[in-house]
Amino acid sequence: MENKKEINASIIIIGNEVLSGRTRDLNTSTLSIWLNSLGIFVKEVRVIPDIEKVIIDTVNELRSKFNYVFTTGGIGPTHDDITAESISKAFNLEYGFHKEAFSILEKYYDKGEFNEGRQKMSKMPTTANLILNPTSGAPGFYVENVFCLPGVPSILKSMIGGLNNILIGGDPILSKTINLRTYESEIAESLTNIQNNNKEVEIGSYPFFRQGKLGVSIVLRSVNENMIDMCYSEIQELVNKKNIEIVELE
Amino acid sequence: MENKKEINASIIIIGNEVLSGRTRDLNTSTLSIWLNSLGIFVKEVRVIPDIEKVIIDTVNELRSKFNYVFTTGGIGPTHDDITAESISKAFNLEYGFHKEAFSILEKYYDKGEFNEGRQKMSKMPTTANLILNPTSGAPGFYVENVFCLPGVPSILKSMIGGLNNILIGGDPILSKTINLRTYESEIAESLTNIQNNNKEVEIGSYPFFRQGKLGVSIVLRSVNENMIDMCYSEIQELVNKKNIEIVELE
Repeated sequence: MENKKEINASIIIIGNEVLSGRTRDLNTSTLSIWLNSLGIFVKEVRVIPDIEKVIIDTVNELRSKFNYVFTTGGIGPTHDDITAESISKAFNLEYGFHKEAFSILEKYYDKGEFNEGRQKMSKMPTTANLILNPTSGAPGFYVENVFCLPGVPSILKSMIGGLNNILIGGDPILSKTINLRTYESEIAESLTNIQNNNKEVEIGSYPFFRQGKLGVSIVLRSVNENMIDMCYSEIQELVNKKNIEIVELE
Repeated sequence: MENKKEINASIIIIGNEVLSGRTRDLNTSTLSIWLNSLGIFVKEVRVIPDIEKVIIDTVNELRSKFNYVFTTGGIGPTHDDITAESISKAFNLEYGFHKEAFSILEKYYDKGEFNEGRQKMSKMPTTANLILNPTSGAPGFYVENVFCLPGVPSILKSMIGGLNNILIGGDPILSKTINLRTYESEIAESLTNIQNNNKEVEIGSYPFFRQGKLGVSIVLRSVNENMIDMCYSEIQELVNKKNIEIVELE
């Protein structure tokens, strides 16, 4: 099921607030959907605490394992924002005021408002490339294949488009979903056969409850549209044979 | 900031549907809040694909690193549900029909309805301990310190209470939140000082946008209530000194 020229990525969510259960991570789904559209598969996500050694070790492990690494969180002005300094250490680069970032923030804030906390947001590996922030000024940055984004979902969302021409993806990942009024156990055996006949397509089976009724979403994913179509018609045969109702959901 | 008698855990979310961005993980926050109440800190979360080798390697790495490991997902009846078999391999245990699980499911389903797909849900390490499922019959299971739960959030939620007397936690983790109408950069320096004065308290600072207005939530976490109170009064002093408005949110 592996694509030979697959381009992959991992995501590191940096933040005690996610580990404590206080905040639900919304950034994984934003990043994954966007990366899929560029032909980049997300293969692993890690949520880790605001601890320097953990950040350094995780970044160094994953940046050698995947084509791209995205971090979210920890680039604000407070004491618990330690991502930029940790990344500098992971790459053995000087941590300090980034000239271009400093100048962007200096222009962004009114005179006299560019205080020490705000200045801290321009501290990062001094040779990093910036990721511009159209929402709130403070840029993200990247070093080699590691891209550091903020944790606030709306700000992150506004920044990723700026990377579309920088990332190099493979074939975009296509997907097709069919929602059925059935139980997983009713179709499990047939699905196994269909998966065996269609090794280039990843077939996912996900039970759902909507409006008090049970059903199953079958999700087909592949970089090859023909393969998806062939697999889809086998699913349709199964649906017809078993007389299963198709449900519109999306 | 580490608690000496800390009991910790990690969570492994098994599922291509989370990595593809199709499904947002809701189980981390459910598990984390529940584990906190038992005095167990979640230190890492990993989201991994439905690939046997990845599941085995991740489980074996994390079960030696943390007191407890919780997996979610991949214990249903379809071809992409490979958690139970992978756990058997990780522990080098026989994978097969679990007598008690088989008998529970046999009773749960009407006569003639206990088909091959449903029977598969009783396959697991044959010597595993069960985690009962009051919602939909099919039990989870645990082997040593690894607890395997389903991916469907409502079912998972209904099952965890059954583990309250099995898990051994440390002191429960207490937290206090104060929401301020301010900017992080306005309080960053003072917060750093307060964090330095209160090393036993983890101080988190999280910007929020509500009803069109910006603010900052300050979250204090510790196993020691007195320490939280002392830290809280330093935050109150700061708030008074800077004349910052306190906002009710929760």
